[in-house]
Amino acid sequence: MKENKYDDPQFFEQYSKMSRSVQGLEGAGEWHELKKLLPDFTGKTVLDLGCGFGWHCRYAAEQGAAQVTGVDLSEKMLKRAKEMTRSPNIQYIRNSIEDFPYPENAFDVVISSLAFHYVENYGKVCRRVYNSLKDGGYFVFSVEHPVFTAQGKQDWYYGPDGKPLHWPVDNYFTEGCRNAVFLGNKVKKYHWTLTTYLNVLTEAGFSLCHVTEPQPDPSMLDLPGMRDELRRPMMLIIKARKTSR
Amino acid sequence: MKENKYDDPQFFEQYSKMSRSVQGLEGAGEWHELKKLLPDFTGKTVLDLGCGFGWHCRYAAEQGAAQVTGVDLSEKMLKRAKEMTRSPNIQYIRNSIEDFPYPENAFDVVISSLAFHYVENYGKVCRRVYNSLKDGGYFVFSVEHPVFTAQGKQDWYYGPDGKPLHWPVDNYFTEGCRNAVFLGNKVKKYHWTLTTYLNVLTEAGFSLCHVTEPQPDPSMLDLPGMRDELRRPMMLIIKARKTSR
Repeated sequence: MKENKYDDPQFFEQYSKMSRSVQGLEGAGEWHELKKLLPDFTGKTVLDLGCGFGWHCRYAAEQGAAQVTGVDLSEKMLKRAKEMTRSPNIQYIRNSIEDFPYPENAFDVVISSLAFHYVENYGKVCRRVYNSLKDGGYFVFSVEHPVFTAQGKQDWYYGPDGKPLHWPVDNYFTEGCRNAVFLGNKVKKYHWTLTTYLNVLTEAGFSLCHVTEPQPDPSMLDLPGMRDELRRPMMLIIKARKTSR
Repeated sequence: MKENKYDDPQFFEQYSKMSRSVQGLEGAGEWHELKKLLPDFTGKTVLDLGCGFGWHCRYAAEQGAAQVTGVDLSEKMLKRAKEMTRSPNIQYIRNSIEDFPYPENAFDVVISSLAFHYVENYGKVCRRVYNSLKDGGYFVFSVEHPVFTAQGKQDWYYGPDGKPLHWPVDNYFTEGCRNAVFLGNKVKKYHWTLTTYLNVLTEAGFSLCHVTEPQPDPSMLDLPGMRDELRRPMMLIIKARKTSR
């Protein structure tokens, strides 16, 4: 069984208080960058892997998607997603990203927001996404940046004054499991190098369209701690396209 | 005038002692990865930006290139390059990467090894390379990795025992000049984010073919200090292609 931290009541409660959980897309620091990379959804069939509260599913439907499928392993997340969803074009399916039975040539767009760093076999998922996309279809996803996941603690290295001195990078080329701390809880995550994130895609048959390391929106820079977000990349957004071989 | 550190006698002497200077391509830790990304050179017209001692120029000629142009700002580097070159298919031109008068639709392949982190206007160079490539031509280059250049000191953060504790990353999104130390000398380098390295290419019209963070060849891992090279990425190799718009 895959780790299902989001059904842990304490973790779920803490996650529910994050600004991205309360305010949705506008509360997510990377949304202004992710949004730019999303294709036109009009009339499209969309799959959202690790859909959580369904914010991206509802956005796709609002933008004209004909059919949206949100997949998540957490019952609690999906319950909340359903409560917030009115559109008949959205269906939620409880499954892990690895075990979802990807139908062939079924989707125009596959999206995933900050979920793949929980997936043990990123390569297998990419190959299944490729098969599940129609020709010309787009795959757009965000993950925690390899600089952020490499060392494992996911925290700054602090100086004697208690302030962040710099961001520590270590074990970069040692890929695989990390015992990270997220919202005060131990969470299993997976670190992959940038090379792996990109080359698995090209080897699966995708063309690379765009790679972005989102920075905070300039309007947010005066919020407490936000300038530290300019000191190291935290996320990586990748846009790829299924093109005929 | 561009900084021309390689004509500084002391710096030149130290650079000349590096294994990549003495042994050539086989003495360069990233060569086994760069080599894989180079296209077929048979009958091709090739430009090498920042050619140094001309190792890559001679390799291209040996692989069948019809004509190879090596560009470098350093007179001392080019003098040595010419001394080591027998092939009539190779010409060396003394100029900076920025000021070289890129002829239009002239080259099948443009390569550059570890030179662009000295270039102040990376974007301008990429756009000129695009115009100077024939349609379908390849642009393959290596640079110091943004993780390596971000903080500026280009050194480990050491623990109390004097051993490398981790690699410090800071000021990642603050692009531009860094006063780095290389071979004990102060050298001006430029830091660009991964986002910039890739998006400047796609905006210029290139398709991204491959991105690799080279690791040491497994056969080299028992050399002193080599295992530390697995702790952080030091280089980035990018392969892009000029495709019709």
